[in-house]
Amino acid sequence: MSDHTFDLGDADALLISADSDRNQDLYYATRFRAPDPFIFLWTRAGKLLMARDLELDRARLQAQVDLVQAASHYEDQLRQQGVERPSTHDILLAFLQDRGLARLKVPADFPLATADFLRQAGIVLEVAGAPLFPQRQIKTLEEIDALRRAMRATEEGMQTAVEALSAAAVGDDGQLYLDGQVLTSERLRQRIHLRLMELDCVGQHTIVAGGEQGCDPHQEGSGPLRADETIIIDIFPRAASGYYGDLTRTFVKGPAPSAVKTLFDVVLRGQQLALERICADVAGKDIHQAIKDLFAAEGYETGEKDGYMQGFFHSTGHGLGLEIHEAPSIGPRPGVLQENHVVTVEPGLYYRGLGGVRIEDVVVVQENGCENLTTFPKYLEVE
Amino acid sequence: MSDHTFDLGDADALLISADSDRNQDLYYATRFRAPDPFIFLWTRAGKLLMARDLELDRARLQAQVDLVQAASHYEDQLRQQGVERPSTHDILLAFLQDRGLARLKVPADFPLATADFLRQAGIVLEVAGAPLFPQRQIKTLEEIDALRRAMRATEEGMQTAVEALSAAAVGDDGQLYLDGQVLTSERLRQRIHLRLMELDCVGQHTIVAGGEQGCDPHQEGSGPLRADETIIIDIFPRAASGYYGDLTRTFVKGPAPSAVKTLFDVVLRGQQLALERICADVAGKDIHQAIKDLFAAEGYETGEKDGYMQGFFHSTGHGLGLEIHEAPSIGPRPGVLQENHVVTVEPGLYYRGLGGVRIEDVVVVQENGCENLTTFPKYLEVE
Repeated sequence: MSDHTFDLGDADALLISADSDRNQDLYYATRFRAPDPFIFLWTRAGKLLMARDLELDRARLQAQVDLVQAASHYEDQLRQQGVERPSTHDILLAFLQDRGLARLKVPADFPLATADFLRQAGIVLEVAGAPLFPQRQIKTLEEIDALRRAMRATEEGMQTAVEALSAAAVGDDGQLYLDGQVLTSERLRQRIHLRLMELDCVGQHTIVAGGEQGCDPHQEGSGPLRADETIIIDIFPRAASGYYGDLTRTFVKGPAPSAVKTLFDVVLRGQQLALERICADVAGKDIHQAIKDLFAAEGYETGEKDGYMQGFFHSTGHGLGLEIHEAPSIGPRPGVLQENHVVTVEPGLYYRGLGGVRIEDVVVVQENGCENLTTFPKYLEVE
Repeated sequence: MSDHTFDLGDADALLISADSDRNQDLYYATRFRAPDPFIFLWTRAGKLLMARDLELDRARLQAQVDLVQAASHYEDQLRQQGVERPSTHDILLAFLQDRGLARLKVPADFPLATADFLRQAGIVLEVAGAPLFPQRQIKTLEEIDALRRAMRATEEGMQTAVEALSAAAVGDDGQLYLDGQVLTSERLRQRIHLRLMELDCVGQHTIVAGGEQGCDPHQEGSGPLRADETIIIDIFPRAASGYYGDLTRTFVKGPAPSAVKTLFDVVLRGQQLALERICADVAGKDIHQAIKDLFAAEGYETGEKDGYMQGFFHSTGHGLGLEIHEAPSIGPRPGVLQENHVVTVEPGLYYRGLGGVRIEDVVVVQENGCENLTTFPKYLEVE
């Protein structure tokens, strides 16, 4: 069953206690999606999953593990032994003892209460290195295909946004109007989300941030959109496959001020520089630094100014897969890119009074370069 | 700022290290939504939040805390002290030491790697009881209003489903057809999700499970829907407010087999029994047991049969709020309901070869009864 391996060292097993809606390592290891916590053990003999009655049949059907164990088996056993109300910790301990597992590796985010309980009972726990499954960074062909499809849907969402901006009229007040009503960040976001949903993708926290709002890279944006200022649109939906798309473009409705055009061109050059340099064995921080250097050379400084962070104050990119942010990172920290890493490339510059520009593609790292999974064109002005 | 309190005992502060997209206690305490981990401290002096540069301005704007601290402040300090590459753990420790916090309470799911690091450095960590914020169970008027609005949208989603079932024709093969095409679980789910999105609600994992699929309560359902068998529709979207709705109805297209009608009536009586008994100070397990007793008296047994869990093998209900499943529970475990708890009431019966029936409302517990936030009618057959 196991299509990848885990380095147990001198431990008997890897133990994860989490829900696989939130913990993507657990989903990756089991391919079983459950909203409530369950137990996963990866021993030398194979993968074991322990579930409550409610999830038992579905786990047996769907989980890519070697054995599915009913939690109620140990619960009943403990009751027969006189434990009136066995806790989930009691049940876990009984499971481990039954299997003779005394030395376990656990992920860095393993819950402390469970760890303290198990250690108290004599179980040895060692925190595994992060990321837990380094293989998760190296995407399979199947995963790259899922990411490519997620990107296609994401681009459809962006196209919907551009069509709305294009169809919008500029009022005397400088605000955008669509179908006679003010075009707000919220309205545009909803249009994008509806289009994504038609394609079985769930968009959440999509950024549609105009003007000053766009200067805060995680600000979702609200209120009327205006001509003559930047509108950052950052769409990162999750497809039914579980994999994410991620795409950012920056637009101005109508002719852009020349300072904004220059800003856009510099960010685009920064991105182009990264796209040209990305390949296997390159250090992410060298790429990140090269972009910072380019920006600085063009006079775009980074740092706190007038009480706000301004310039290029986030990373160049991050891994994309079952999580929107996952390893590896293209930023100041060490680490080299490897073949079939899938990463975003998203430099940005943000200045109060001028606006924010971010341009983001998703690429697959290859031996001698990268394949861009993004086809959406890059331009600033929407007529 | 603090509209609720936390019992620190002899600790200096409560410490949470998590992202508030996934950790709802953290969102509850800060009202700040962030996709990446940040640090939260609740001392006797007030609430502190430490964020990376990327989130700093947004945190200062949005977080309902007394002070927002830049992580880079300590990072720079550590670099000046000769630490070449300060880790997030180093930065956290510097923050704690700077504030003179040596004795901390942490949540049960606090990450073990961070706990081991801090304890190694002499910080005393004590796991707080669960739930971390018992007040989260007691909904404010504002929260009840948000839940009520989420339920209205959820009912709109259900109405969309009923209209599609109603408009569907039954083919000679017993399958449902809508607009000339087979009506599948996937198609119906998408219609529901689109309607929810129009109302700014995100539906995920919505259950549309026909026949045998409905016998597995968490099975989402796939493939063609059929007449003459139960179709369980369980919709639990998250509204823009962050609060969930949750609603289940069970339908049969066309006349239902009489055994299914009887099954439906018994489940409905089970739910009615619960709705009549729920009030402040009642033990959840008494309500749960009463339903089980009623089902058993009517001849509907629970247990493993033919290799499957059958009967009524999940809890009667769960708390609803910022999470789809939160405290309190109405099930076999101890605990009494309190005024302004918001809980689901969702008994079900599942038998292979017969079908599954679940009926779910959401209620607010009151002193002498409960207020049902659900208005969607309960009927089995859709013409």
